[in-house]
Amino acid sequence: MAKLIQEYMDGDTVDSFVLIKNADVRLTKNGKTYLSLVFSDRSDNISGNLWDASDDQVAQFIPGKIVKLEGKRSSYREQPQIQITHLRLANQPGEPDNPGDFMQHAPIKEVELQNELNDYVLAVTQPMWNRLIRKLFTDYHDQFLRYPAAKSNHHAFAGGLSYHSLSIARLANGVVAQYPQINKSLLLAGALLHDLGKVLELSGPVATQYTVPGNLIGHITLLDEQVVLAARELNFDIEDENMILLRHVILAHHGLLEYGSPVRPMIMEAEVLHRLDELDASIEMMSAALDKTETGHFSDRIFGLDNRHFYKPNLEQ
Amino acid sequence: MAKLIQEYMDGDTVDSFVLIKNADVRLTKNGKTYLSLVFSDRSDNISGNLWDASDDQVAQFIPGKIVKLEGKRSSYREQPQIQITHLRLANQPGEPDNPGDFMQHAPIKEVELQNELNDYVLAVTQPMWNRLIRKLFTDYHDQFLRYPAAKSNHHAFAGGLSYHSLSIARLANGVVAQYPQINKSLLLAGALLHDLGKVLELSGPVATQYTVPGNLIGHITLLDEQVVLAARELNFDIEDENMILLRHVILAHHGLLEYGSPVRPMIMEAEVLHRLDELDASIEMMSAALDKTETGHFSDRIFGLDNRHFYKPNLEQ
Amino acid sequence: MAKLIQEYMDGDTVDSFVLIKNADVRLTKNGKTYLSLVFSDRSDNISGNLWDASDDQVAQFIPGKIVKLEGKRSSYREQPQIQITHLRLANQPGEPDNPGDFMQHAPIKEVELQNELNDYVLAVTQPMWNRLIRKLFTDYHDQFLRYPAAKSNHHAFAGGLSYHSLSIARLANGVVAQYPQINKSLLLAGALLHDLGKVLELSGPVATQYTVPGNLIGHITLLDEQVVLAARELNFDIEDENMILLRHVILAHHGLLEYGSPVRPMIMEAEVLHRLDELDASIEMMSAALDKTETGHFSDRIFGLDNRHFYKPNLEQ
Amino acid sequence: MAKLIQEYMDGDTVDSFVLIKNADVRLTKNGKTYLSLVFSDRSDNISGNLWDASDDQVAQFIPGKIVKLEGKRSSYREQPQIQITHLRLANQPGEPDNPGDFMQHAPIKEVELQNELNDYVLAVTQPMWNRLIRKLFTDYHDQFLRYPAAKSNHHAFAGGLSYHSLSIARLANGVVAQYPQINKSLLLAGALLHDLGKVLELSGPVATQYTVPGNLIGHITLLDEQVVLAARELNFDIEDENMILLRHVILAHHGLLEYGSPVRPMIMEAEVLHRLDELDASIEMMSAALDKTETGHFSDRIFGLDNRHFYKPNLEQ
Amino acid sequence: MAKLIQEYMDGDTVDSFVLIKNADVRLTKNGKTYLSLVFSDRSDNISGNLWDASDDQVAQFIPGKIVKLEGKRSSYREQPQIQITHLRLANQPGEPDNPGDFMQHAPIKEVELQNELNDYVLAVTQPMWNRLIRKLFTDYHDQFLRYPAAKSNHHAFAGGLSYHSLSIARLANGVVAQYPQINKSLLLAGALLHDLGKVLELSGPVATQYTVPGNLIGHITLLDEQVVLAARELNFDIEDENMILLRHVILAHHGLLEYGSPVRPMIMEAEVLHRLDELDASIEMMSAALDKTETGHFSDRIFGLDNRHFYKPNLEQ
Amino acid sequence: MAKLIQEYMDGDTVDSFVLIKNADVRLTKNGKTYLSLVFSDRSDNISGNLWDASDDQVAQFIPGKIVKLEGKRSSYREQPQIQITHLRLANQPGEPDNPGDFMQHAPIKEVELQNELNDYVLAVTQPMWNRLIRKLFTDYHDQFLRYPAAKSNHHAFAGGLSYHSLSIARLANGVVAQYPQINKSLLLAGALLHDLGKVLELSGPVATQYTVPGNLIGHITLLDEQVVLAARELNFDIEDENMILLRHVILAHHGLLEYGSPVRPMIMEAEVLHRLDELDASIEMMSAALDKTETGHFSDRIFGLDNRHFYKPNLEQ
Repeated sequence: MAKLIQEYMDGDTVDSFVLIKNADVRLTKNGKTYLSLVFSDRSDNISGNLWDASDDQVAQFIPGKIVKLEGKRSSYREQPQIQITHLRLANQPGEPDNPGDFMQHAPIKEVELQNELNDYVLAVTQPMWNRLIRKLFTDYHDQFLRYPAAKSNHHAFAGGLSYHSLSIARLANGVVAQYPQINKSLLLAGALLHDLGKVLELSGPVATQYTVPGNLIGHITLLDEQVVLAARELNFDIEDENMILLRHVILAHHGLLEYGSPVRPMIMEAEVLHRLDELDASIEMMSAALDKTETGHFSDRIFGLDNRHFYKPNLEQ
Repeated sequence: MAKLIQEYMDGDTVDSFVLIKNADVRLTKNGKTYLSLVFSDRSDNISGNLWDASDDQVAQFIPGKIVKLEGKRSSYREQPQIQITHLRLANQPGEPDNPGDFMQHAPIKEVELQNELNDYVLAVTQPMWNRLIRKLFTDYHDQFLRYPAAKSNHHAFAGGLSYHSLSIARLANGVVAQYPQINKSLLLAGALLHDLGKVLELSGPVATQYTVPGNLIGHITLLDEQVVLAARELNFDIEDENMILLRHVILAHHGLLEYGSPVRPMIMEAEVLHRLDELDASIEMMSAALDKTETGHFSDRIFGLDNRHFYKPNLEQ
Repeated sequence: MAKLIQEYMDGDTVDSFVLIKNADVRLTKNGKTYLSLVFSDRSDNISGNLWDASDDQVAQFIPGKIVKLEGKRSSYREQPQIQITHLRLANQPGEPDNPGDFMQHAPIKEVELQNELNDYVLAVTQPMWNRLIRKLFTDYHDQFLRYPAAKSNHHAFAGGLSYHSLSIARLANGVVAQYPQINKSLLLAGALLHDLGKVLELSGPVATQYTVPGNLIGHITLLDEQVVLAARELNFDIEDENMILLRHVILAHHGLLEYGSPVRPMIMEAEVLHRLDELDASIEMMSAALDKTETGHFSDRIFGLDNRHFYKPNLEQ
Repeated sequence: MAKLIQEYMDGDTVDSFVLIKNADVRLTKNGKTYLSLVFSDRSDNISGNLWDASDDQVAQFIPGKIVKLEGKRSSYREQPQIQITHLRLANQPGEPDNPGDFMQHAPIKEVELQNELNDYVLAVTQPMWNRLIRKLFTDYHDQFLRYPAAKSNHHAFAGGLSYHSLSIARLANGVVAQYPQINKSLLLAGALLHDLGKVLELSGPVATQYTVPGNLIGHITLLDEQVVLAARELNFDIEDENMILLRHVILAHHGLLEYGSPVRPMIMEAEVLHRLDELDASIEMMSAALDKTETGHFSDRIFGLDNRHFYKPNLEQ
Repeated sequence: MAKLIQEYMDGDTVDSFVLIKNADVRLTKNGKTYLSLVFSDRSDNISGNLWDASDDQVAQFIPGKIVKLEGKRSSYREQPQIQITHLRLANQPGEPDNPGDFMQHAPIKEVELQNELNDYVLAVTQPMWNRLIRKLFTDYHDQFLRYPAAKSNHHAFAGGLSYHSLSIARLANGVVAQYPQINKSLLLAGALLHDLGKVLELSGPVATQYTVPGNLIGHITLLDEQVVLAARELNFDIEDENMILLRHVILAHHGLLEYGSPVRPMIMEAEVLHRLDELDASIEMMSAALDKTETGHFSDRIFGLDNRHFYKPNLEQ
Repeated sequence: MAKLIQEYMDGDTVDSFVLIKNADVRLTKNGKTYLSLVFSDRSDNISGNLWDASDDQVAQFIPGKIVKLEGKRSSYREQPQIQITHLRLANQPGEPDNPGDFMQHAPIKEVELQNELNDYVLAVTQPMWNRLIRKLFTDYHDQFLRYPAAKSNHHAFAGGLSYHSLSIARLANGVVAQYPQINKSLLLAGALLHDLGKVLELSGPVATQYTVPGNLIGHITLLDEQVVLAARELNFDIEDENMILLRHVILAHHGLLEYGSPVRPMIMEAEVLHRLDELDASIEMMSAALDKTETGHFSDRIFGLDNRHFYKPNLEQ
């Protein structure tokens, strides 16, 4: 059984099926064409150059394709890379053909994730919010389940978007049990919906990029617009205070204007949602970094956490 | 002919018709009811207390009422105020009865302002933007012409909103003549529309307050929502790049995230609109402050300009 | 039955037993001595001046004394105050004599609070941490149960310190259930201990002030010193990694250097503790402010939350 | 006709006359001398290495020389470069010999630029300012017309300094027409003079560097000193308010202390000049970046605009 | 012998000669004229109102006059003030008539100060700097010896400017002895000259205000201009590196652009001068605040030191 | 006599004894093992790669070893490096064998440094502080004399820690002579002790790294803990004000919370110590950078001084 990318050490001979994540056509100093490739599987990414690439190779080795990769692993400026000795498309009988198998996934089965999300939708008992969530979850059903929660920060894996929303709903559930002054329906509605605009901001689960509306408008406003349009379609009065509260919770969830929220939280549920969002994202980022760190050492620096690095202590659970 | 508020000096006897702008009911240390009032006319504001106010007086001296004010002007902690000797509603035949006459107005007649605005609407030749502006200007016709541009910062007078928009359109017109690489339709569309959300953010031209949606959503997003709903009504595709550009120009016009824009300007017209908006607002703020300053002295500090004060030099024009 | 301070309205005649919280001796413009007093009970504070105070009165009306207060409530510059007509010590038989009855308390009985805290101590299964917590909780048993969590920010009531610690332990318990990668013992140890230094930073539960060591050293370092001294007494090696981790969690719990932590969180449990600390404090501050706010209005601005004010919506729970 | 630098694509054979902009002598790992060169023409810059450079080559290939460049264009780390196959000085009859032909120029003929500037000088009707401008424009006539406005930010081309000053004068002209409260003479004087100190701060139009006074004193103060010395020579009283106003407008034109102005704008004309300066610079930077960007894509990030990138939409003018 | 202002306690009868520092004419609520006065002597300031002031009194009680003040000291809002019972000009034979006797002075005799300054001037052995200092010290001899170093921050007493310069020269002398790599002449020249621009920025030693050039140009640039003009008069080449270094040391002495230096220190002597300037100013501010503080207490908060308050410990020297 | 690292120029043949400071084992692109080495002597550092390193070579060329290095000096990306032609351990008779000879040292003999430090210890006349310093200096005698003051910022050489402490003590001595209001014992105690925690924060004088306690606790708190433990051992009352003052001076010496002090200076001696610490560190950083700079040029940018570069003027001392 072939090894995963993460399992190879410097100097190892590599022979595995991997997915092409990026493929740039470049010229060497002598003017020869080569491909600068990034390969991935569910364990990690690794880059490598295919020298003297023919036109055929340039045409077939494109993002989203599964390939059989042979070579040797080394390091260049602290970054591991593959010296490619052989590369071909995985097109033989019996070879893997589902790109989804090469992506990292949420650590929960899709059906379970969906069931648990549905339970939380039911717990939103305010009728306008409930109907709005159901309408938007229906409209964007597939994207919500398959998209990552970000291009590269936290939950940057297939299904990361819905998994992150679920994690916050779980945290929210615990918080409202402890603090009865917080409105459960509103906090859960915010937890479920707040990042749904990312299905319009990002290009999709594979080779994720920002779309033009994603860049020029941003996922917060893109979702607010969808909420308003859906409300109009459902014949809700968008001036109804319940509609204003829901929009506020969504708009304010980044907490600070500097982080792209057009308003700061000004109701309790908005403030709490913002804090739970950051709590889940930070735990996910630290966990991902520490998973790649040996006990007794510091992780790589984490951009999304002010470039801090984290120590992995030797603790029994 | 009675004097205006601004014309009275400390020690003068006051006898004028003025508008009640604010009226708070309070208790003296001895437990007697009094009214803490702010009066205004088109020249200025001044405050005064009505001691031993009867229930009748409390009921009739409310914001928006025109009153005949008699008393004496003095100063308390550098702030001028009126020692009220007599106060009654202006309800005699021949006395002023139009609150609008007591508000500051844009320094241009409403009909001229409207004509000039219409010319600029015609100059928006891109058809989607043109139809959208006309639809929204029709929907909010009266408010756009009567609202101030802000509660208390700049253009805080009746008609200030449309006058500020017109000033920016004029500046924009000059800029596109000098820099042909800027799209005239888009810059003008932004100039005309960018602050229209204030008709939803503010309560109205008299005794202006922030509305609940104004606080929780903000005028930038409120307008973006109206643009999207209007586009839907006009059967425009909101994913059309022209729609995205217009929304971007509106969303980005505060320039910085810290100032409440959910995105920073990322097209040239958005950047220029932001700068023209600030240019006009700063000139208006400085002019208003210097109008009240003697030559050779510094104005009061201006909150909206980082609390700077400005010197009024002795310059022949 | 006498009314509480919060129950009186402007103009009401006041006749209640209250606690003297502050008492400053001052001179009127005519050179007469008067007392500027702040009274409190478990509902609120209110100030009032005792004019023409005799030497006897100055001597007996000092902070911590219970008095019978008669007068009339009015307002001065938006602040309610009492016009005192009569004031005497509560020294008659049957009159209240326990200052603790006039303070706000944690919304849970002390015995329950202590039992629940003990359960969380037991859940700290790492033996060094467990023994350290038990030693410090024994050394500072009474102060921990009676002190506020802050002079005036959040949980500024008797028992606020232990109640805040308990709230975080509860939140921590939920978080470790959801994220098994977090060490439960360490997070709970941090939750229980992190603010214990406040018993050295603050002067006590009544008329709370900062002590000199509180000002010059600060509660974070004061606690770290106690941990090190206790470890020495228990013959623990302070270089043991478990000791370093516990000190780090305590030292880093303010999250940012600007907030007084000498190090930023660099292990996962420290980061999570910091976020739960802020989550509980913010909910407590918002709740306290909204308790005094009418539905449909905004609260006073909250200093500890960047001076934001919060809207109290009309929501059924 | 040979192609311009910008017209070559990766893989193309290059054969053009270009100007040497920079030339660094370096050693290869094996200890051989080579030249690291930057070539430029009026379209763009490109770098390339001349391997095994002889002493003769080191001596002749210096900044400011025109050369005939042959080679092949490729890319290294996203940056285009030339693999040099042949390089010689352009010293044959009929070959280009004017370095000025290889620099980018202001998009207006020098004589027209000068005429238009003269018109604006005439419009400065205040006699002290008018004579001062004429004196300084005479003293620095050639440098003002030939220098760039910056080393590498905006208007970094020959004549950029005077062209930038002219652009601001044009904008100023429009602004004073719209806002009569602004003093035209003072705003124009500021527009014309404000950046003249750059002729002392920068080394010249070719291979522009900061001079030692440029680094240690800065162009704002260098110009202020020239103004004071010129005033002394013209027997003006430097304490005259007109002199103080002109110096203030120059000193304050960067707007913020952080940007190197020793005072913030405190008269209206200084504030407006600062804003027009930034408006013109930002339009120039965006235009330069978008000129190199395909429709439907984002430009490179612009350092001088907070590292934003700008989208080039598909808009008909 | 009459007491000093600082020696009176609340309730004391006051009877002393004092200087009028400020005198504002105001109206009471009933429209009567009164004078709001600030009195000072070398120990402290105190304010008081002269009710029912006659036109004569308004005319004679002006800043700079010495008066005989009788009244009673009390406190209003924590600020001590005088209830004036009698006030007249000090115009009797034998009464004090020198305003200088009522100002705080540098804690050193003027002649000693001048001698010690002269010694440091001699220690500036570089001839251009030496001649420049001597020329400027001659031109501004009296002002340099009499002005304060600031309007209200540090060394805000008569002679504070030269005393502060001397203190830095003393510190500089110690530093160059310890670090021979620092140029003694340049550091001393900077120490002596750096704040001399304050004689143009401030109005004088009594009732000190900012002048218009002080506001619009600032003392740093005002001094740089004087240096350049003096150099021209002495026929020095202002492009000589020695001239550039001296100007740089002066221009950079505030250390940060935000503090008004147009350039940050870029030579060692400029960096050291900046730090010694801040060291002396901070010691002076702390000492002044602690002089008014009882042992075991905290001083008032000091604006110029980030609003910190300082603790006065019980330490034997 | 062999040359020092700093004396070689590009192209020179190198033949010297040097110390191995770092040694990383890496793979070439073809999978061959090589050593990436950093060599040092008392003059400078230089890096070089040993290609095709055998297992023996990997085992013997480790940090702390003295080697005979032969090769040629060149530059790569502006950084000098050695092309190694021969490398062997210095193990012949008569060859250098003391690593200390290859480190930079404080510019003063250890015995003199120690004597002068002892004199300053004697000048701390307050008995608690004196005994505490003597106890801690005894406990950490060797480390204090041998450690650097930082990993790479300032005084990053053997003995830098004690030399930096001495330099501050010398400055402090001059300051207390000039300002008698400063407590000499306390300022000297702070000067001597403030950085002693670095012996726990850093790994040692060779190949200096941060320890785990150094990262998670930091040298300020590590020293505070030692002070408290030592006080306990000496039977001092840690609540004694003298103990609180000493801890405050140590805790506050970084001046700002952002720089890692848990409290800002709140007594005069703490403020002065902070400023002297920064003064000495900045002079040391500038001097080190300017030592490598030619007259008339700018140094490299200095990270610890906000990335400024400094000009080295042509000044006679």
